Amino acid sequence: RLKALTEDLHEADLADLIDALHPANQSKLVRLLGRDFDFVALTELDDAVRVRILDELPPEAVAEGMRELDSDDAAHILEDLDEPDKDAILEQMSFVERLQLQRVLEYPEESAGRRMQTDFIAVPPFWTVGQTIDYLREAEELPEEFYQIFVVDPGFRLQGTLPLDALLRSKRPQKISEIMRGSPYLVSATDDQEEVAHLFERYNLISAAVTDDSERLVGVIHIDDIVDVIQEEVDEDIKRMAGIGDEEVSDSILATVKSRFTWLLVNLATAVLASLVIGLFDATIQQMVALAVLMPIVASMGGNAGTQTMTVAVRALATRDIDIFNARRIISREAIVGFLNGVLFAVVIGVIAAVWFDNVGLGGVIAAAMVVNMVAAGLFGILIPLTLNKLRVDPAIASGVFVTTVTDVVGFFAFLSFAAWWFGLA
Amino acid sequence: RLKALTEDLHEADLADLIDALHPANQSKLVRLLGRDFDFVALTELDDAVRVRILDELPPEAVAEGMRELDSDDAAHILEDLDEPDKDAILEQMSFVERLQLQRVLEYPEESAGRRMQTDFIAVPPFWTVGQTIDYLREAEELPEEFYQIFVVDPGFRLQGTLPLDALLRSKRPQKISEIMRGSPYLVSATDDQEEVAHLFERYNLISAAVTDDSERLVGVIHIDDIVDVIQEEVDEDIKRMAGIGDEEVSDSILATVKSRFTWLLVNLATAVLASLVIGLFDATIQQMVALAVLMPIVASMGGNAGTQTMTVAVRALATRDIDIFNARRIISREAIVGFLNGVLFAVVIGVIAAVWFDNVGLGGVIAAAMVVNMVAAGLFGILIPLTLNKLRVDPAIASGVFVTTVTDVVGFFAFLSFAAWWFGLA
Ligand SMILES: [Mg+2]
Ligand SMILES: [Mg+2]
Ligand SMILES: [Mg+2]
Ligand SMILES: [Mg+2]
Ligand SMILES: [Mg+2]
Ligand SMILES: [Mg+2]
Ligand SMILES: [Mg+2]
Ligand SMILES: [Mg+2]
Ligand SMILES: [Mg+2]
Ligand SMILES: [Mg+2]
Ligand SMILES: [Mg+2]
Ligand SMILES: [Mg+2]
Ligand SMILES: [Mg+2]
Repeated sequence: RLKALTEDLHEADLADLIDALHPANQSKLVRLLGRDFDFVALTELDDAVRVRILDELPPEAVAEGMRELDSDDAAHILEDLDEPDKDAILEQMSFVERLQLQRVLEYPEESAGRRMQTDFIAVPPFWTVGQTIDYLREAEELPEEFYQIFVVDPGFRLQGTLPLDALLRSKRPQKISEIMRGSPYLVSATDDQEEVAHLFERYNLISAAVTDDSERLVGVIHIDDIVDVIQEEVDEDIKRMAGIGDEEVSDSILATVKSRFTWLLVNLATAVLASLVIGLFDATIQQMVALAVLMPIVASMGGNAGTQTMTVAVRALATRDIDIFNARRIISREAIVGFLNGVLFAVVIGVIAAVWFDNVGLGGVIAAAMVVNMVAAGLFGILIPLTLNKLRVDPAIASGVFVTTVTDVVGFFAFLSFAAWWFGLA
Repeated sequence: RLKALTEDLHEADLADLIDALHPANQSKLVRLLGRDFDFVALTELDDAVRVRILDELPPEAVAEGMRELDSDDAAHILEDLDEPDKDAILEQMSFVERLQLQRVLEYPEESAGRRMQTDFIAVPPFWTVGQTIDYLREAEELPEEFYQIFVVDPGFRLQGTLPLDALLRSKRPQKISEIMRGSPYLVSATDDQEEVAHLFERYNLISAAVTDDSERLVGVIHIDDIVDVIQEEVDEDIKRMAGIGDEEVSDSILATVKSRFTWLLVNLATAVLASLVIGLFDATIQQMVALAVLMPIVASMGGNAGTQTMTVAVRALATRDIDIFNARRIISREAIVGFLNGVLFAVVIGVIAAVWFDNVGLGGVIAAAMVVNMVAAGLFGILIPLTLNKLRVDPAIASGVFVTTVTDVVGFFAFLSFAAWWFGLA
């Protein structure tokens, strides 16, 4: 009955069903389904859940279940396992299967080689449309889905590509070499998956040939896997900007604490730095406690403005919308935007402070500090990510710390030192 | 010569070329190229650039250039124009073209109807594979690219779908009705593009049929346009979380100032609120100025921890990783994570404060405030986005403000009130 229930489920729905089960029952369900369990569903689960289920299955069952998978999905299932578990499963496979999978696993994680399927359709250029269609009709072991056919020479070097619609529109006697297209969008198996995703996005590709160092065709990447890559890379950027590690909602409490600890520690260090700056002015504050009341405002506004600019910059770097041609223009734009918003908010907060504490001088001091900090926010908000990017550090991961540290320090220092000078305090 | 240079460019590269030109030269290039300009390139430009170029072109030229476009691209080009400009262009089109385009433009922005192409291939179920292939070979006006064929009844109601590979693998005499697949993944023209993108991601689709209210087939959505939707929706979330409007790097200074002003104003209000809380304790601070030096630390740590939790929550809501089944578990996890990190950082900052000011009591006060604020950060970091989502407010846009307001207020209040009570200050 269980089999009947799950048989018609799409792998994504099956994965959701597993996800909803109590952890103890998850591998039980997989074992109960036995050969009827579609291992593709495992690739749709979060890493932690997948590893837990695989741990509880016998290696033979895993090896058996993986037989039907595309090479990219098989690699995905194996990659997060411990070496001994991985080896135990590989040992259960036939020599050829093991060899193929090991070759895919040799490519670095997040490379095109990991994302490609080693199953594809290749024909020689001298075939005709009729021969090709007949071949497709007769062949037993075709990939489950394909969107183009590759044209190769005897050494498996790529000669051209042929979208299926082009094949269908041509008459049977036509030569493949006459209707094939060039293959301008070549992916190398060692390319970073993010680069490949950009290629797909930019040129609206559906699938792309993957070649090895000697330019032999070794696989094909499909858009559905690239959609996953896009989500992964964006997820990474969003989480890094917020100071979170490689975290998923299914992670355990301890894994979550760990994923957030580092950034919080860095933030503590920068907060202490800001406190040291305030400490320089403790005598000033003692003489005018209104300064303590108002000082977080300037820092907070700078922090937000800086985060705005930084986010635009990090995002534009990720989508390749900033380049050397427009960087200079964008930097000066951010400085001017910071200045204009700084002036606007200086007026608002200046009036508020002057009225609140019945002290026009205090209004002027906070207004001046606001302008200074907002310009600093704009400038550092754009310069820090650009510099990190140039140094080949991911601007998403580190920009936030630097930017808010700068705006805190500048905010507190400008406000308190202007006040000390204007009111002639110690 | 210009024609020769740009002829072979992909539309994305042509768009980049336009982007790199001085604004005054952009529409000049388009006019020089005349009929050789590929209007698809316009869809790859930022909104502001596209509108500027279109403004400077005569309506006849635009109407002429749009003749070749898919309906989704044509709608994309027209949608951002003023009504009079739009009408002027529509008037230059033939009656049928105008009618078709107006129907697409009637669907709301960000709906499936705007993203679909009205060009598709449909055949009756009683045709054979051979008939279908012959039809494809003979037909003149086929869409430029297609990945599946739709099977419809005389009323254009969808009966099934046929991927091209299935067509190629079947023998000529086979009936279409025998090899067609069901069409479980139906998109209605009024569906939100974000929902459609989820469908594509979840079921790894390449294209999907779009039907109208009476279940007639009206168009097809392709994955390359869904990739754009995914990027758009993610971009929107990232920018909203950072408090930025619909901003692009090519925007003018004034547009940028405007895009950021609103959130900064909201932030100013919340910063003033935090100042009011501090103001409650001005006498306390007067008596112990070390409190002013230390107080931003608790607020800052809470703000960061809250942002971490909120980001995970907003992201998980966007990817549908939080649902009613796991919400409760995630809420309690966030509270526990906040408590554990709170205790860890309470120890660190407690020791730092005690040593720095040579005051063990002060260390205890800041430690206690830290635990309280970190738990608050975890709880509100998850509860605020969940609540907003339930109220059908986009959690990406408003969570940040609420969360940092809570952590600021709780942070300052807890620290200063604990201190006042412990040291018996006014
Ligand atoms: Mg992984
Ligand atoms: Mg695109
Ligand atoms: Mg795949
Ligand atoms: Mg996949
Ligand atoms: Mg990466
Ligand atoms: Mg990245
Ligand atoms: Mg762009
Ligand atoms: Mg638009
Ligand atoms: Mg998928
Ligand atoms: Mg399109
Ligand atoms: Mg498009
Ligand atoms: Mg939306
Ligand atoms: Mg959204």
